[in-house]
Amino acid sequence: MNSKYQTIKYKGNKSSDIEDLVSIEEPLEMIVRYRKSKKWLKDTISITMRTPGDDASLMHGLLFSEGIINKDSTINDIKLLGKKVGKYNLQNKIQFTLENSENLDTKKLKRNFLTNSSCGVCGKTSMDSLEIVCKTKINKGIPKIKSDLITKIPNLLRQNQSEFSKTGGIHASGLFDKGGKVLVIREDVGRHNALDKVIGYSLKKEVFNTKNQFIACSGRLSFELVQKSLMANIGLLMGVGAPTSLAIDLANKFGMTLIGFVKSDSFNIYCGENRILKAN
Amino acid sequence: MNSKYQTIKYKGNKSSDIEDLVSIEEPLEMIVRYRKSKKWLKDTISITMRTPGDDASLMHGLLFSEGIINKDSTINDIKLLGKKVGKYNLQNKIQFTLENSENLDTKKLKRNFLTNSSCGVCGKTSMDSLEIVCKTKINKGIPKIKSDLITKIPNLLRQNQSEFSKTGGIHASGLFDKGGKVLVIREDVGRHNALDKVIGYSLKKEVFNTKNQFIACSGRLSFELVQKSLMANIGLLMGVGAPTSLAIDLANKFGMTLIGFVKSDSFNIYCGENRILKAN
Repeated sequence: MNSKYQTIKYKGNKSSDIEDLVSIEEPLEMIVRYRKSKKWLKDTISITMRTPGDDASLMHGLLFSEGIINKDSTINDIKLLGKKVGKYNLQNKIQFTLENSENLDTKKLKRNFLTNSSCGVCGKTSMDSLEIVCKTKINKGIPKIKSDLITKIPNLLRQNQSEFSKTGGIHASGLFDKGGKVLVIREDVGRHNALDKVIGYSLKKEVFNTKNQFIACSGRLSFELVQKSLMANIGLLMGVGAPTSLAIDLANKFGMTLIGFVKSDSFNIYCGENRILKAN
Repeated sequence: MNSKYQTIKYKGNKSSDIEDLVSIEEPLEMIVRYRKSKKWLKDTISITMRTPGDDASLMHGLLFSEGIINKDSTINDIKLLGKKVGKYNLQNKIQFTLENSENLDTKKLKRNFLTNSSCGVCGKTSMDSLEIVCKTKINKGIPKIKSDLITKIPNLLRQNQSEFSKTGGIHASGLFDKGGKVLVIREDVGRHNALDKVIGYSLKKEVFNTKNQFIACSGRLSFELVQKSLMANIGLLMGVGAPTSLAIDLANKFGMTLIGFVKSDSFNIYCGENRILKAN
């Protein structure tokens, strides 16, 4: 699933309005219904961000690859639940009813699963709860930035990564000042970890002066990265890759500047275009 | 952190032994020690796969971006815990002691965090528990595959993705037969989700005939993707990106074939090189 977003594309020193197709990211709550001591019970085993579509296969595969069900397990009923919510009017809950589940390892159910950080049961809930935490924060200031600096960031990020040139398989996040000076760069196999390291280091060393700073990431821009930037009161986030729908919606809601597909001669502005200064 | 792995690089129709530097992936257990009703309590709030290094910043940033601590929180003590484990002889636990934590929202502690799927407290535990589940499974058969087919897979994967060409921001996984026929391809903003969808669909539709099949992924090869393939009894996994250390170690332990950096004229074999047939 994808959705159209109005975007401004910079190429060279020219900007144009385009419609960009963006992959949809929405949370999915997965619920298992099973029987213990002749009673029917329910557990939410995972809330994960996903692209909607074939949710039943997603949950089936996850239950199987975590060893909760096997090839002989009987799935009695699969249904989407809950109100249709959010911008895309989707049911974001799915429930599997497992037959013959008296012997189900419920410890495994509770222990094994990935609950994606910080998302509520649906995107709306997530954004609302963030609003409470962030509402007095983000508008303190977001820097203006020159278009020709933006196109230099991927190289600056890469030059300051110590690991990427060696392994070709690691993500980076960096905190920069608005003039493009590198303040801290961290690397990790997990994108969100690289950003957490940058934020943790900057807090500890008191590097943050957020109205003059921005964050750049090596990969795609997910909801999670926008959320972490917001919490740190950084209002400008850019990335080498594509943003997801929920990343744009969240950035938009909090008045952030969000820039994706940053390359050496082009980039796309998804929000905050008034803060981009054209190079002469 | 990175580590050297012996690898076989195919380029054109020539193969050579190389040493490849690989990013290290190891689990980190994060523990918060806090005070409630004058008692000191402890909770594991997250077990996440990460690249070791600056673990304190990682945990600091995560606590902050999840809203568990704020700028005024007092962190009394930060320490690495546990025995040095695994191949890299690392302590994979870290504990923050929070002062003035009587008002800490402990529900948030338990609710908000990402516990990465299926990893135990350390890589060793993970691999051991997998061994129990998988030991009778993986050796039923792993296909041999021609080198010139491997280099065609990234294009086949991409041609059969419906979303990538539109959004440029979505991962794919596919199940192929050993002749290169596409059996199912699924896309998602999350790499692990795309693979779960493939596995769930293949189970439901009874597509699996694992000794003649392999899985290909659009991105990097993490521990999690190897683990999911193993659980599905697929012994050949390839990806367009780099593998992590733990992905290679796990694949090696279970006798899988693992191929990374697959491009239109080259690829690297990390395990199972005897199953790659040179094209004439």
